[in-house]
Order: sequence, then C-alpha cells, then structure tokens
Amino acid sequence: MTDLTPVLHAKAIDLGRLAIRATTAAGSGHPTTALSLAHIVAVLMYRVMRWTPADPGNPGSDRLVLSEGHAVPILYAACTDLGVVFGPDGKHRAMTESDLMTLREIGSPIDGHPNPVLGFPFFDAATGSLGQGLSVAAGLGCAARVDGLPKRIFCIIGDGESREGQIWEAMDFCADQRLGGVVAIFNCNTLGQSDYVSSAQDWEHLAAKAAAFGARVEIIDGHDPAAIERALRITEDGRPLAVIARTVKGWGVPSLGGPGHHGTPVKSEALAGVLAELDATARRLGVADIGAQDFAALKIAPPVAAPAARAAPQVPMGFGAALAKHPALALAKKLSPRRAYGMALAALGDANEAVVALDADVKNSTYAETFAKAHPDRYFEGRIAEQNMVSAAAGLAAAGKIAFVSTFGRFLERAFDQIEMAIIGGARIKLVGTHVGVTLAADGPSQMALADVAFARALAHVTDAKGRSLVVLTPSDAVSAYKLVLAMAEYDGPAYLRAVRGDLAILYRDDEQFPLGGSKVVRRPVEAPAVVLAASGYLVHSCLDAAEVLAQRGVAAAVVDAYALPLDAEPILEMARAARAAVLAVEDNYVGGLGSELAEASAALAAPVTVESLGVRRIPKSGRTPADVLDYVGLSVPEIVAAAERLARRQRSPHERNGSV
Amino acid sequence: MTDLTPVLHAKAIDLGRLAIRATTAAGSGHPTTALSLAHIVAVLMYRVMRWTPADPGNPGSDRLVLSEGHAVPILYAACTDLGVVFGPDGKHRAMTESDLMTLREIGSPIDGHPNPVLGFPFFDAATGSLGQGLSVAAGLGCAARVDGLPKRIFCIIGDGESREGQIWEAMDFCADQRLGGVVAIFNCNTLGQSDYVSSAQDWEHLAAKAAAFGARVEIIDGHDPAAIERALRITEDGRPLAVIARTVKGWGVPSLGGPGHHGTPVKSEALAGVLAELDATARRLGVADIGAQDFAALKIAPPVAAPAARAAPQVPMGFGAALAKHPALALAKKLSPRRAYGMALAALGDANEAVVALDADVKNSTYAETFAKAHPDRYFEGRIAEQNMVSAAAGLAAAGKIAFVSTFGRFLERAFDQIEMAIIGGARIKLVGTHVGVTLAADGPSQMALADVAFARALAHVTDAKGRSLVVLTPSDAVSAYKLVLAMAEYDGPAYLRAVRGDLAILYRDDEQFPLGGSKVVRRPVEAPAVVLAASGYLVHSCLDAAEVLAQRGVAAAVVDAYALPLDAEPILEMARAARAAVLAVEDNYVGGLGSELAEASAALAAPVTVESLGVRRIPKSGRTPADVLDYVGLSVPEIVAAAERLARRQRSPHERNGSV
Repeated sequence: MTDLTPVLHAKAIDLGRLAIRATTAAGSGHPTTALSLAHIVAVLMYRVMRWTPADPGNPGSDRLVLSEGHAVPILYAACTDLGVVFGPDGKHRAMTESDLMTLREIGSPIDGHPNPVLGFPFFDAATGSLGQGLSVAAGLGCAARVDGLPKRIFCIIGDGESREGQIWEAMDFCADQRLGGVVAIFNCNTLGQSDYVSSAQDWEHLAAKAAAFGARVEIIDGHDPAAIERALRITEDGRPLAVIARTVKGWGVPSLGGPGHHGTPVKSEALAGVLAELDATARRLGVADIGAQDFAALKIAPPVAAPAARAAPQVPMGFGAALAKHPALALAKKLSPRRAYGMALAALGDANEAVVALDADVKNSTYAETFAKAHPDRYFEGRIAEQNMVSAAAGLAAAGKIAFVSTFGRFLERAFDQIEMAIIGGARIKLVGTHVGVTLAADGPSQMALADVAFARALAHVTDAKGRSLVVLTPSDAVSAYKLVLAMAEYDGPAYLRAVRGDLAILYRDDEQFPLGGSKVVRRPVEAPAVVLAASGYLVHSCLDAAEVLAQRGVAAAVVDAYALPLDAEPILEMARAARAAVLAVEDNYVGGLGSELAEASAALAAPVTVESLGVRRIPKSGRTPADVLDYVGLSVPEIVAAAERLARRQRSPHERNGSV
Repeated sequence: MTDLTPVLHAKAIDLGRLAIRATTAAGSGHPTTALSLAHIVAVLMYRVMRWTPADPGNPGSDRLVLSEGHAVPILYAACTDLGVVFGPDGKHRAMTESDLMTLREIGSPIDGHPNPVLGFPFFDAATGSLGQGLSVAAGLGCAARVDGLPKRIFCIIGDGESREGQIWEAMDFCADQRLGGVVAIFNCNTLGQSDYVSSAQDWEHLAAKAAAFGARVEIIDGHDPAAIERALRITEDGRPLAVIARTVKGWGVPSLGGPGHHGTPVKSEALAGVLAELDATARRLGVADIGAQDFAALKIAPPVAAPAARAAPQVPMGFGAALAKHPALALAKKLSPRRAYGMALAALGDANEAVVALDADVKNSTYAETFAKAHPDRYFEGRIAEQNMVSAAAGLAAAGKIAFVSTFGRFLERAFDQIEMAIIGGARIKLVGTHVGVTLAADGPSQMALADVAFARALAHVTDAKGRSLVVLTPSDAVSAYKLVLAMAEYDGPAYLRAVRGDLAILYRDDEQFPLGGSKVVRRPVEAPAVVLAASGYLVHSCLDAAEVLAQRGVAAAVVDAYALPLDAEPILEMARAARAAVLAVEDNYVGGLGSELAEASAALAAPVTVESLGVRRIPKSGRTPADVLDYVGLSVPEIVAAAERLARRQRSPHERNGSV
C-alpha cells in the first residue's frame, strides 16, 4: 500500500483552508478548533468511514457525531470537497463551495452547529450544547445492534468538553452495553475558550479516566495520518474505544496558536496572510505540490451493509386486550396511568419492532419493566444517568427507532438541555415521566415533577424546520393513558407523557378517542354551568368531587379533562362564553401549564372570558397522603369548591363584571 | 485508647432500629439503604466530625452532606439520639424520638429527604435528586477556604448514584481547587432500586475512577468502625479523599438483604421480627449488653473554629463611578448588559467580602473575568460543567456567601434540576445567563436561551418555607443591568439575571430606580395609547422603533420595559384599560414569559383587557445578524408594527369587540 501520509496532509490543509475561508465569510465561528481536527476528519471521512457522499444519511453507513459542534466548519469543508448531498426535503443536491460560503446565513442549512433537521442528513443529531455527542453515538450503536448492522460510530469530543459529566455517563453506558463499535475521539488541543483546559482534562488524565471507565485506550498524535488511521481501524473487542488525540489548536497557522483565538474568525484583511501560513506549512511538510491526481488515491469504502427489510407494524392491541393479560387487574376499578404505560409499551413492542425503550433504574416504578421483560433485546437499561439516557434515545430515534424514555418526571428535569437539543435536531423522542405532581406526597419535592409543565409547554408552542412540536399529555385514567401512549408512538414528532403514581378510577370506555390537542367534557350539568373546571391527571377526579359539592350548593359546574398541551382552548372558552361562566384551571404544577394556556387563549380574544388558575404556589414537602399535600398547597376539594364559588359569584354580579378590580 | 468497636457496633444497631421504626411509622422510606450506612454515620457523627448538636448549623463545624438523600432516616436517628436542635425559626429545640416518628408528616420538618429550609440546620442543602451532594460539599469547601476555616466536609454518595456524571464533575472540581478537606464516601452496597448496580459502579471500578480523577483513595469495610475511623481521619494532602466503603444493604437484618427491598418500609406487623433480627446481630457481635454507660465513651469534638468577624459590607459604587474605571467605555452610547454585569460584580466584590463568583469557561464572554481579576481568591473557575457549578454555588450560599454563577443562559438549562434543588433547599443563589435570546444570531439555537424564561417563571411564582421566590430580571440597557445586579445581591432570595450579548443603547440615567417586580414606561404618547407594547431586554429597543413607525401611521403606542418576573402587571393593564387599548407583549423567548404573565393577570380579572403575545414560535437557526434571526422568527420591527396595528384596529371596532372571534 502506498503511504498516503503526504496526500492526507495535503487534504487536511485543503480542508483547513476551506474552514478558515468559510468562517471569515460568516464573520463568526471557530477556525482554530476546526484546524485541530483537520487530519482526524480527513482520515475519517476519506479513509476509515464506510459511507457515501451521495446518500449521507444511509442507515447502513458508519456514522460521525461531532460532539464539539462548534468545530463543524472542518466537516462542512470535507462535505464541500466531497459534494455531500444536502438540502431540505425534495431539494437534495451536492454541496458546493458557494454553499459552504453561506455558512451561518439565515437561509442556509449550513448552520453554525450541526443540525440534521435543517437539511443536512450527514448529521444524526443537533450538537453544540457540549457533552452530549457520545450519548447520541451510543444510541446509534444500540440501534445498529438491534438492526444487526456492523456499523462503527465515531464521536469527536473536545478536551475541555470532556469535563461535562454526561461524557462519562455515556462511557459507562457504552461499557455496560458492550458497544464495541463506538469510538470516542478526544481532541486534546489543550485550549478551552477562556483559558487552557484544566490538567484534569489533559491527555494523560483523559486516558486514565477512559481506562477506568472500561474503554480500550489509544494515545496518538492527532496530526499524524498513519497513527490516526491505525487507531481508528483497531478491531472491535466489545469495549468502547477511546482515542486520545494530541492536537494543536490552530494547527498549521502559527499566528493562530496559543490562547485568545477561540471562536474568533480570521478578519478579511488578514485572510491572505493566514492562508499563506498554511501554504508554508504545506511546503514544510513537502506536500505543496499534491493535487487532484494524488487525491484520487483517497477512495471511500461504501456503506457496510444494507438494512434488512423491517416487518410492517401491526395495530397494537386495545386496552381491554392488554388488561386481559393481567388477570389480577382485570376487575380493578382503579389503575395507575404508569401501569397503563407499561402495558401500552409492551403492546407497541409486540406490534412494531421499531419500538425500543430506556429507563434509569426505576423500571419497576415506571412499569417500563413490562416492556423490558417482553422485549429484552430492545430494552436498554440506562442506570441512574438521565442525561445520557435522553441523548441516547435521540440517537436511537435518528436511526429510525421509536424510542421511549422513562423515569420519574422530576428526574427528566436533569435532562432538559438534552431534551431541547433532541427537539432542535428533529428527534422524535417519546418521553414518559411518572410520579408527577404533589400527589407523590411522601417522597417530597425533590421527587415531584412540578416545573416540568412550564418547560414542556414552551417547547409545545414552537415548531422545528419540519413543522413539528412537542406534545404534552397528562392522562386522568388508565384507559386514556394507554391510548395516549399509542398516540404518541404514532405521532411523527416528540412527545411527553406525564403519569401520576397513584391508582385512579377508570373514567373512560375502551372505545373513547383521545386526539392530540383535544379535551373531554367529563361532567356537563343539565343547566348552564356557572363555572367550568378544567384539569388534567389526578385533579380531574378532584374536580369531579368538587362539582358534586358545588351542585349541592346550587352552583352548576362543568368539568373538562384537558389532557393535552398544546390545547385547543376554544371549545372550553366557548362553553364558558355561551353560559357567561368563568373558567377555573386546577393544576398540580407550578405556573405555566393549563392555566396559562387557557388564560393566553382567552386574553388574546377581543372579548376575553375570565380564567383563573388554582395551582401549586408554594414548594411542597413530604406528607403521608396525597390529600395531606394537596391540602398543604391549597388544592384540596374544599379549596377547589371555594375558588369555584367565588368565581361563579363574581360572574353573576354585573357590578363587579364591569367595574375595575 | 479503648477499642470503641463494640460501642460503635451497638450505636449503629441502635440507629438502625430507630431508622426502621421511623420509616415504618411513616409508611414509606428507605430503611435498607439507611442500614447500609449505620456504621459510617455512627463513626462520623459520634467520633470524627467536630460539631455540636446544640448548634448544628455552626459555620465553624465540620459538615455532612447526604448526597443519597433517601438514606436520611439513619441521620435523623442519630440526630434523635443526640438531641440535635431543629425546628423553624424561633422554635428551635432538641429533637426527640416522638419528633422522629413524625417522619414525612405534612406538619413536620423531618422531611422525606434532607432540606434545611424546613427547619433542619444540620443540613446545608436539599438533596434527593441524586448526584448533587459532592458539588455542594465542594462549594462548602471553597467557602471554608475563603473563610480560613480548617473544616472537613464529608459527603455520602450511593454507588448507583455515582453513575450521575455530576459526581465526576464535582471530583474534577475538588481536584482542581485542591479541596483536601472534602471527603467523598461511596456507599457501595451493590444494590440500586430496580436491580444490582452495574459493574461500572462496583467498588473496584469506583476506586479506579476516583483515582483517575485525582482523588486519594481508601477502600474499607463500611461496617468496620475502626477501619471507617482510620480512613476518615486521614490527614489532608490537598487531594480530595475518596473512601470506597463496601457495605451491605439491609445490614444486620438478613430478611431485608438482596434485591427487592429498595424504598420499602417494614410493615407494622413485621416490625417486631425485623427488630429481633437486629437484636440477634447485636448478640452475634457480642454487643447486646452495651448501654448508656458505655456510650458515654463516644464524645463529640466541638466545632473546629469560630468564624472570624466579617467586615461590614459597604455600598457598592454607582454605575457612573464603575464606568469611569473603564475610560474606553466612558463615552460609549451603547454598552452590553453583560459588560455591566462584570462591572457590577467587581463593584460588589469591592464592597462586600461575602461576594463570590463562579463561571464555566466563558468568563471572557460573560465578563465574570472583571471580578475574577479583581478578586481572584473569591473566584472559582468551574470549567465546562454547569451542573457542578450551580450545586457548588448552593454550597457556597449555604456557608453565607453571595454566590454569583454565570454562563450562557442556554447552558444554565443543563442545570435546571440543580437550580430547582437549590431553590427547594432555600439557597439564595444568584444566576446570570448571558447571550440570551435569538439576537445571539450566528451561533444558532444550541446556544440561545429561549425556554429558560418559562422554567424560571414557574419558580418565580412559588415560595419556599421562608416565603422567598426566584426573581427573574432581563435588563434593557447597561444602567439597568448594573443596578439589577446590585439589587439581586441585596435580595434575600434566589435571582436570575438574563443579559443579551449585544451592545444596547443606554436608556436610563444613573439615578433611576429599578424595584424588583417593577416596570418602566419608556414611551408615553401624548394622546391615549391605542396599544401598549410591553417587552424586556433587546426588544424594548425594537418596540421603541416600532412605536415611532406606528406614530407616523397615526397609531399611538406606549412602550413598557417589563424587566422583572414576577411582574406587578396592574399598572400596565390599568394603562390599557384606561385608554381602552390592548396590550401586545413582545418576547424574545418561547411561550411562558411576559405574555403569559400579563395574560394570566388580565384573564383573572372580572373585565379582562385584551393581551396578545408576539414571541418565538419556531426554532431559530443561525443568521449572520440579529436582524436576520429576528426576522426569521417573526420579531422584526415591521412585524411588531403590523401586530400592534391589527390589535389597535380591533380594539376600536365595537362590532369585533363584542362578537365572538
């Protein structure tokens, strides 16, 4: 075999040149980080990876996850040189140099950080918030194993970035799952943004850490093409491979070396000088004369395998049939939504082999274990590391899986950044948070999801480049929980189901339909209601109890199960408007949920309807029963009754209606 | 010295008995985890720690952070035995056995997981969401160093819990900061909730990991009192100490051994049998006859030092004086709020020695470096590990520091769980997120804080046991930024300041006041406004521009700088009501911010005012200028004008006002 070292040096320099020019054109970006990766990217994309630029998203190809997303210009440079196909759906074409020069333009898919959903299928996930890429790579590795594809997944991680604990959660996960195809490449260029990296992130410490975490470790000069190729071609032995690459930030351009050059593009007027420095580097290495003919020696191996045809999904069994599999429960009048989650997930797994699940050491509480027992090959135990679990699910979703992720809703807060990154990248992840709300009671606020609703609702009202939004679902009984789990699997976008811990009375028949965005009137008084109570989950039952009490006191109350966010608020507001009634949203969460949804919809009308919210306004604490804590936070049935009566009375008083308050 | 092993065995068994009884009384809790820590807690609290039960919050005493918060009954047991003082402010008293039996009662400070704010000053922070304790311990260690107190900070971590990446972020931080007084005790009982822990979390791997992360490592039998004491008394050498304690979950009670006993209290009817098993263990160890006289040998050493008197804070210099220190800026008409943050933080540091700061490798972007240069001994570089940084700040706050934490607002999302835990525990942390909103432009959505507002607003409307809430501040110029930084330092609670990247025109004079919860009318038309534009940050300037255009078109618009959440909405709504105008909230964030705040306040009125929100409803992408991205998300000045005109027109049309929409 010819020694390709000179050719790869020349290619790395060419890519560096393009990356510098692109960031200068953009007026921002990270050329020095890009240069530190020039050789690694050249060896990966022109030599080691088995893929095709004509079909960069091909599921049978090796994958490259750029965890340090700000280094992306060096990948774009290679994609330009190779004419990688990109562009929004229906407009795919080979990338050109003029495309590259649109880096960071508002109309361009050549974004500042990797993002597949904008039309760049070479990427599997949006990166840029650091520390998440190795988890995505692990998810891709899990999917490859399920699919029987002998792919390799390469992940480039910054040295400073490897301070993020999630990197080590991912390494544990790779070791646990024996993901020998995952290769973590640590780019040890010694410089962070504001300073040198800590000695804790120098190459020696990173090597020792990776070894302690169960990886096979190779230490190389990250600018030596032969050494890079040797390390990246190491045969799998079941352990993840950690390649510790010693690199130079601003490689090849002495004037860009050392601190103070992070995230700073070369100014237009300095560009010629900087490119001349690269030319000098080429001459120093004796590769200045290498040209197109020599580059022909760089041949890319095709995708490693064609994915096997997948069995067409069947229709999952209905709630009744699923219940019949649990004879002990069949006669139960109360059932927890989380148990229905487990039943639905197992049924989905039976019907569709694309369904996979992850959980974080609480599968016996979330009932993900129902699935884990039925489909052990498609269950991935994430242990107590929620961030890795969510990003791994994004990787699984990128590989075409319908990936369910469950833990206590409270612990998903740990992964809000990862959830948002998954959604930014268009990952259709399916999140399930159990034990939500104050009715968890005894375990106290460290275990209660209460701020999750506000965060999730924010993402429910924003669309990605394909027009998809997060849907948020809080079922009030086991039937609706079951059906909503099926619906979220069906939905072509991200979803979040919230399930309380406790057993709840069954409210619905098996033939009831639960459209996303919908709501259900579960109590409609004969006379026009004086107040409309809207709630979800546990509190639907409290509102039904409150409506009984209100009826005894002569106040007609309707009750709506508003199980979805975003919510079509109009039917609820119209019911209130028609009856000249007010709406009381009753919420087992902090501000920013159903009450906000209804208030915003109402206040935007030319003739708004009065909407009040009764929610959690003090941090709860442990209580021995749900009733204790509901009372503590002001959500007991008597308090719902009192708030509803006050509202109803005010609605009836024309003086108060017209006066200022 | 007498061998205290039998006495400590007996004490451990006594504590185990109490912990079991308490969880049985509560009907929930984690007795088996508690038993695995019985000896470690006995040695710590009766032998090694220098403290006093009469004043458990004494700042001169050694501290114990229980990272695996669910094990707390064993600490409560020791506190009961020692009569540790607890209770809400003004009602301090020694804990008794009947107090212990109120575990998890709604009226009791003996909560399900540690929480100081409920009235249990033995704890420094709320724990229970796993993986955060070592960071809190590190923060306490930093504070001790600043204060010159030779304290030791012990932290107990579960083996399963050590899967959380934050544990390793904290270990890196302890090593970087040479926190030799911090002792991480890993409770290796081999069992998680749903299964055995992974081999990645067995004692051998944990020992190797801790060593690779720069800790001094001791491996011990966690039920051998002498071995525990020897390890915990190791003299400091600048490295954090990691004690790998091999323990037994359900120690002393064979029937509670093995999997399936996590988080399950002993049923009342089984209690006698379980306690008899502990008695049998005592007999087996030959310690059944040890009693009060023997226990007298367990003497607790007093707090190691009295804190030095602290200089009284002075009044920080005003904005003008701070600006004068930067001659290059003194004449600038535009200045970024983040630069004002750096100036204010440095001024606070001059005036008050309790002020400390942390940042995550972006101090040159957030301008925390202004403080770092002025007060290097009170600056702690957190590197790229936001979770550890936030929890460490909670530790610093627990030790009486006014701890500022800065990074890009987007990256604070990584630490939402840690922020919520800090707030649950009553920590008065001061968060600063820079580069917020879409005007960051070129770097794209992975770097833009947009969902942070909804999350923070949720916490702004909930009070802790002392009545404190998070305040959220988004200044629109450098003067207000400067003053709001001073105000958040002054505020006796948690605060979050959001600062855009760009330079903004100066809007305010140095003598303007910015009360928390307030807003400023920055444009008041001569005639009654047809529309009130409310905004914060960058968009206040856009609204001023829009109001100019509207005026040219004959539409009078008022502009309000609504810099605070929670917001006193009434003045804004009253202005609109008086003028029969509508309100348009213009927001550089996802749903859940100012628009929700105003809509909720309005909709709750008997005669609501129309409120619409113009905000970010699609995920942004890179653009080369702020204007490009504002246009992309529909927040350009022409779009603000169009929305305002539409609203104003509708307000004037009585037909539309009364009809349904």
